[in-house]
Amino acid sequence: MIKASICTIGDEILIGQVIDTNSSHISQALESAGIKVDKMISVGDDHDMIIDSLEKELQKNGIVIVTGGLGPTKDDITKKVLSELSGATTWKTDERQLEIVHRILSARGLDILDINIAQASVPDTCEVIPNRLGTAPIMVFRFPESRYGHRATLYSLPGVPYEAIGSLNDVIKDIKANNNISDICHKTVMTFGLAESALSKKIEDWEDSLPAGMHLAYLPNQLTGVRLRLSSYNASENALETEILKLKAIIGDYLYSEHDDTLQECVGRLLADNNKTISSAESCTGGTISKLLTSVPGSSRYFLGGITAYSNSVKERVLGVPAAIIDRFGAVSSECVAAMAEGIRRLTGSDYSVSTSGIAGPGGGSAEKPVGLVWIGVSSQMGTETFKVQYKGDRERNIERSSAFALDAIRKKILLETKH
Amino acid sequence: MIKASICTIGDEILIGQVIDTNSSHISQALESAGIKVDKMISVGDDHDMIIDSLEKELQKNGIVIVTGGLGPTKDDITKKVLSELSGATTWKTDERQLEIVHRILSARGLDILDINIAQASVPDTCEVIPNRLGTAPIMVFRFPESRYGHRATLYSLPGVPYEAIGSLNDVIKDIKANNNISDICHKTVMTFGLAESALSKKIEDWEDSLPAGMHLAYLPNQLTGVRLRLSSYNASENALETEILKLKAIIGDYLYSEHDDTLQECVGRLLADNNKTISSAESCTGGTISKLLTSVPGSSRYFLGGITAYSNSVKERVLGVPAAIIDRFGAVSSECVAAMAEGIRRLTGSDYSVSTSGIAGPGGGSAEKPVGLVWIGVSSQMGTETFKVQYKGDRERNIERSSAFALDAIRKKILLETKH
Repeated sequence: MIKASICTIGDEILIGQVIDTNSSHISQALESAGIKVDKMISVGDDHDMIIDSLEKELQKNGIVIVTGGLGPTKDDITKKVLSELSGATTWKTDERQLEIVHRILSARGLDILDINIAQASVPDTCEVIPNRLGTAPIMVFRFPESRYGHRATLYSLPGVPYEAIGSLNDVIKDIKANNNISDICHKTVMTFGLAESALSKKIEDWEDSLPAGMHLAYLPNQLTGVRLRLSSYNASENALETEILKLKAIIGDYLYSEHDDTLQECVGRLLADNNKTISSAESCTGGTISKLLTSVPGSSRYFLGGITAYSNSVKERVLGVPAAIIDRFGAVSSECVAAMAEGIRRLTGSDYSVSTSGIAGPGGGSAEKPVGLVWIGVSSQMGTETFKVQYKGDRERNIERSSAFALDAIRKKILLETKH
Repeated sequence: MIKASICTIGDEILIGQVIDTNSSHISQALESAGIKVDKMISVGDDHDMIIDSLEKELQKNGIVIVTGGLGPTKDDITKKVLSELSGATTWKTDERQLEIVHRILSARGLDILDINIAQASVPDTCEVIPNRLGTAPIMVFRFPESRYGHRATLYSLPGVPYEAIGSLNDVIKDIKANNNISDICHKTVMTFGLAESALSKKIEDWEDSLPAGMHLAYLPNQLTGVRLRLSSYNASENALETEILKLKAIIGDYLYSEHDDTLQECVGRLLADNNKTISSAESCTGGTISKLLTSVPGSSRYFLGGITAYSNSVKERVLGVPAAIIDRFGAVSSECVAAMAEGIRRLTGSDYSVSTSGIAGPGGGSAEKPVGLVWIGVSSQMGTETFKVQYKGDRERNIERSSAFALDAIRKKILLETKH
């Protein structure tokens, strides 16, 4: 198996000002292509440290991916250092990248300065993959076997995350074209409602009976549940599909998507496909469900509106929750979230609605209603259901988990009521 | 200046499943103590890679901080590897940590198994700093000068972020006690409304005239503005205060806090201190302002409620925005956000309110109202003001930036109207 190192360059990561998210994306892309990352490093904008670190990684691995340090200002020295490392004698201008530099700056209404033009200039020792999303090109340095005892390739990517991620397809394509990598097939499914350990127990027999060469990876996430990725180097797409069919029969509704998806995207698709609308009435989740639903482009087609009803008076006056319900059962109750869900549906005229009321913490709980207790309601013309959950996290975790639970509950309701 | 390396251990980071946030926190803590981090590395749960990487870092730097790989399961091998690296011959049980293990598991209602007890067992070559937040102790390995040509200390921290962060104070204290580190003084202030470059131009003269040994760092963040940190190794707290006073005279209202703060915390404090309440009416920001305001513990004291009015019908029916305004000026207009801000204040009875309406993108803009255009309204009994901003980011960035702008606008309004 071919191995890779990832190296991020820049003082801002080293002083803790910026969290490195590029390495994670690059690693995922490499892993999907069947390339194992065995080391990630971060160094500052320091000539000796960069040279020393890159030499060590190139000695070890066939692929080294570098990001960062390609800005036009003088503290960015990656290109100069790579020129030296690769023994370049002259520089050349990449005309395709120069055209992109002109296009990007004109679109921003900016003059094109010498330092901008210099972005398209690269050491003569590298090949260029144009970067369509920014001014700094992707540089590819290929080292012959004589240098490190094995063929090695260094890819230099921009540090801006969306440019780095945007260049990954081209980089992976180049790696595949220049290395003997068996094709790897993946199939990803999204599950919600079972923790990683419970899920793994439930599908243990299925996992154990997978054909040789097929591998299952668990990728848990608070807001989207556990992502399962089934991979194989030798099996066909069809063989993977067959296994996924068996998996579906075991976990049923816990599986919410056969794409790499979020709950809010899945809910949105269900609503749009069935021409239905939704609204939200949130107490303890404070607008998080509304934020998640509206984070999906095009959500204005199906999301009519939401209310964060933090005070009881808003619950009563705006959502029409009867004061008697709050007096008798409290705001954190099945009765209250049912009335909230029905109230927001009445108010907005939406087909579906979702509601929450709970004690997110850190303070405010009681023996009977401890911190982390959340009631969730979902409603449609067909009826209203409520759910009680008890979490043990901090405020942020409790809010996130109950928001995800609510999205999953409304997903199941829409699915059931729109099935033909 | 004493230098440090940070090393995270664990397959989950290397395959891109988890983003390493520990390194950034550790680096910030070290930097605040006057210790420079010159390399961060991540390796998998692989014996040879861990040994090799740690040896290299210890040869280079006096301090190496390791996180991760301390779980009770067999794939976590950090402790075994450190035992070998340090030449341990036996293991010892740390009674303080054992007590914590018992306490934590009892609180969770779990039986105490052998693998749990083993968590308190460490190589006899290390000192232990008890970890109050989890079962794995912090191990301190001190290497004499004879081994690497300089004194070197390796700290092994748990990988769980909140445990790692929670142990940093103790680790920094130990580093200070065992190394000759001059005391460093910091003063942090938060600014909003000026980009890093514009801010740096505005305060250029002040920055240039800082007494020798005082250093200013810029830490920009989309949601909280630019954090400025003034540091000095030799100056007194008072000398820093004096400079901050001069800075305040230059940037005035752009400075929103003299603590390490967020806009929502600052708005919350202003409201609580003045016994005032707030509500929100959001269109394009989709609940983000409500989510931010309610992310602050205790926000139920001053946040009454919010509405995500995505559809025009909710704007009209719930917030009472006159249909004539939307017909004549459109939903993305000064008139509409003013009516929204006044409507939510009327509906909830809050003292203050904030509203947004804009085109977050990616689609939906026009020549007259392009993607990234956002109108923001703030309202109180004293009157209603509106602001127009034009951003050029993607959907998520446009939503975050306009939410932060709105929080800053309401902050200024409350400040002005509650000044005595």
